Amino acid sequence: MSRRPVLDFWYEFSSTYSYLAAARIEALAEGAEVEVRWRPFLLGPIFAAQGWTTAPFNLYPARGRYMWRDIERQAARLGLPLVRPDPFPQNGLLAARVALSLREQGATPAFTRAVFRAEFAEGRAIADPAVILALLRELGLDAPGVMAAAQGAAVKARLRAETEEARTRGLFGAPTLLTADGEMFWGNDRLEEALAWAAGERPGGMR
Amino acid sequence: MSRRPVLDFWYEFSSTYSYLAAARIEALAEGAEVEVRWRPFLLGPIFAAQGWTTAPFNLYPARGRYMWRDIERQAARLGLPLVRPDPFPQNGLLAARVALSLREQGATPAFTRAVFRAEFAEGRAIADPAVILALLRELGLDAPGVMAAAQGAAVKARLRAETEEARTRGLFGAPTLLTADGEMFWGNDRLEEALAWAAGERPGGMR
Repeated sequence: MSRRPVLDFWYEFSSTYSYLAAARIEALAEGAEVEVRWRPFLLGPIFAAQGWTTAPFNLYPARGRYMWRDIERQAARLGLPLVRPDPFPQNGLLAARVALSLREQGATPAFTRAVFRAEFAEGRAIADPAVILALLRELGLDAPGVMAAAQGAAVKARLRAETEEARTRGLFGAPTLLTADGEMFWGNDRLEEALAWAAGERPGGMR
Repeated sequence: MSRRPVLDFWYEFSSTYSYLAAARIEALAEGAEVEVRWRPFLLGPIFAAQGWTTAPFNLYPARGRYMWRDIERQAARLGLPLVRPDPFPQNGLLAARVALSLREQGATPAFTRAVFRAEFAEGRAIADPAVILALLRELGLDAPGVMAAAQGAAVKARLRAETEEARTRGLFGAPTLLTADGEMFWGNDRLEEALAWAAGERPGGMR
């Protein structure tokens, strides 16, 4: 059995376009014969480093109004339900820690999709530990045990390291797709191109 | 002969993604049976109103590095030549005035494509009146006459009014596509969706 090329899928739980990408990536990756690594991280520290105190969609109202309308259209195209979280952005710190802590048992993708669905399809508060506990139980996981591990020092340090890696690799938004050879693709719109690049395809004339 | 629906194509001469959209829009619009209105405007005053002194690609270096790589890939996909203008962004004020002044004689699309090609395929300085004069001559237009009219008070006021209309309609970047019913699409990536909307198509479940 040959080894599949790997695509790193960097996402942030508060991010609308990450919701769309998380809903799409597995079927597309299967078709492209690419293996996806799910990499939750935090945009907050990256935004803060460039002087932003919240999401650009809040800082720049015209940009924000457009984003919501565009997300509504994109969700409709994909047949995905959409509610607008209140407040926006939601704080995704706890969810990111839990998602990271589940990597070894292979539960990160399923948990990630469950969080995005709770947040953007059902309007639930993903910063609320009770919501996260309920999602873990629904997935058949040891909810209290996972929660305790996720809030331990090791996972906290790991999430900080992941976020620092994202920053040093030049990530500025989410979702971001990174190939093994360092090619960066930003946004749900670039998912197909990122998978094709990971699989070895190159746009005309590029190497 | 039935009247075709109209799509407003708002673009800025310094904008890389406007270059791609300008190269693609006419063939796509013909296929969608949509009429395009070419509407040059200035992003500078809109950026300045939100506190930006230059393009976001310069203000946020990680975003800028990504944009150049993405544009390189997109140009390769489309088979379009690409050089990086120096300095970037170019000052598109003169080109925008000339493009606007050519509307009545129907020469705006051809002139616009010529400017984008000079800027992004040949690396010429589009703020230089000699470059604009040369492009006008190559198009068989009365170059000195056009240039004089473009720098008159009427055209200057018209460009200010166009830019103010863009701002009040919520434009925050370029290219932006606006349908007759006020639907906004931002970016070369949304060109196909904008044309489909203008032609009456709606994503599943939307009205």
